[in-house]
Amino acid sequence: LVSVLSSAIIVYRLPWTWKCSKLLMKFIHAGLNTIAMILAIVSMVAVFEFHNARNIPNMYSLHSWIGLTAVIFYSLQLFLGFAVFLLPFAPVPFRAALMPIHVYSGLAIFATVIATALMGITEKLIFSLKNPAYSTSPPEAMFVNFLGLLLVVFGALILWMASRSHWKRPPEENAKVLRPIGGTPEGTEAESTMTDGSNADKSDLRINSEAARKQNLKLDEAGQRSTM
Amino acid sequence: LVSVLSSAIIVYRLPWTWKCSKLLMKFIHAGLNTIAMILAIVSMVAVFEFHNARNIPNMYSLHSWIGLTAVIFYSLQLFLGFAVFLLPFAPVPFRAALMPIHVYSGLAIFATVIATALMGITEKLIFSLKNPAYSTSPPEAMFVNFLGLLLVVFGALILWMASRSHWKRPPEENAKVLRPIGGTPEGTEAESTMTDGSNADKSDLRINSEAARKQNLKLDEAGQRSTM
Repeated sequence: LVSVLSSAIIVYRLPWTWKCSKLLMKFIHAGLNTIAMILAIVSMVAVFEFHNARNIPNMYSLHSWIGLTAVIFYSLQLFLGFAVFLLPFAPVPFRAALMPIHVYSGLAIFATVIATALMGITEKLIFSLKNPAYSTSPPEAMFVNFLGLLLVVFGALILWMASRSHWKRPPEENAKVLRPIGGTPEGTEAESTMTDGSNADKSDLRINSEAARKQNLKLDEAGQRSTM
Repeated sequence: LVSVLSSAIIVYRLPWTWKCSKLLMKFIHAGLNTIAMILAIVSMVAVFEFHNARNIPNMYSLHSWIGLTAVIFYSLQLFLGFAVFLLPFAPVPFRAALMPIHVYSGLAIFATVIATALMGITEKLIFSLKNPAYSTSPPEAMFVNFLGLLLVVFGALILWMASRSHWKRPPEENAKVLRPIGGTPEGTEAESTMTDGSNADKSDLRINSEAARKQNLKLDEAGQRSTM
């Protein structure tokens, strides 16, 4: 789950994806997140079945509370991401306004999932290691502690990659951005509406006047961010 | 500890500090972090004393491993921050290069401290609630779970505030940045060397030529970030 989530997060930072169309990248991002959501639901069902089979109460621990909160926010994130960024209906300023929130929520949910995993590992070690007890530091405990530490390091690396602005996908080709309005070939318009909304918006602005160049530079950056 | 850490993180984002000198803000930031470090050391000593008094082994749990890692990185962060950003010896390009790492490590350590606290709460609830057990959801358990959830929400808010670029401290007054070289009043030079290194650097560049204006704009932003 954590590895699929991380792949979904860093897909926009990978050099090979810089050669993909933005639409394909969006589909990879959405697809990986859908797989992660399915894994999350499967594992939650497994936990409830396991608890019920062993007569263990459900949803009493902090691990379960925070985990469920993360899954609820994650499904909200998935639904909003699909409705706003993948379907062609949302207007460009709305996409641009929602993008920083979408990015931040994604990273925050990722960090919360790691914290939940660490709490789950702690619980599991306490409950399962009885003879020898967890507190006597048997090899299993050391091994799992080490895995937990690796999980933190892994999460920190992913968040580092995701937050570096110079690892962002490079800007679209100018030829595409600067194409004249009304001269778009058949089929491009639909893709533009679906995925390149803010780039189309930028090209409109750019043609207006050279005086607005500086403002466009800023918009370029914002647009790049808002549609990454 | 978490609240002092958070204050240290967001001190650069608070409107009232926009009126302070950068030097004062740095001292507040360094001071709060020093207080947090002292609190961390005091609480670690308390934990070891408690364990030794009750014959509980030390450093066996994932909570302790990750917590100690966080404290080690935090002391490193504090030492490096003091040596590079507070003492006047580090050259400006080195400060600018280290600043993104300093900012990221600070936020990563903050998130790790919250994860450690959540694991500690989980452990404490399991060990302390025996009759009635944690799994029967007594009111104490619900209350502490709720506090844990609040801790996550609080951490997410702080990280949101710290990562918003438009909540950054506004640029220095132009009058100060654009003061002519050699015309600095007595006493300003020392402060400039200690805290405004990259601003002084920028003003040098700005005077060179109007053609370099665009580059300066970029440098402005980098410098603003590197010395925030």
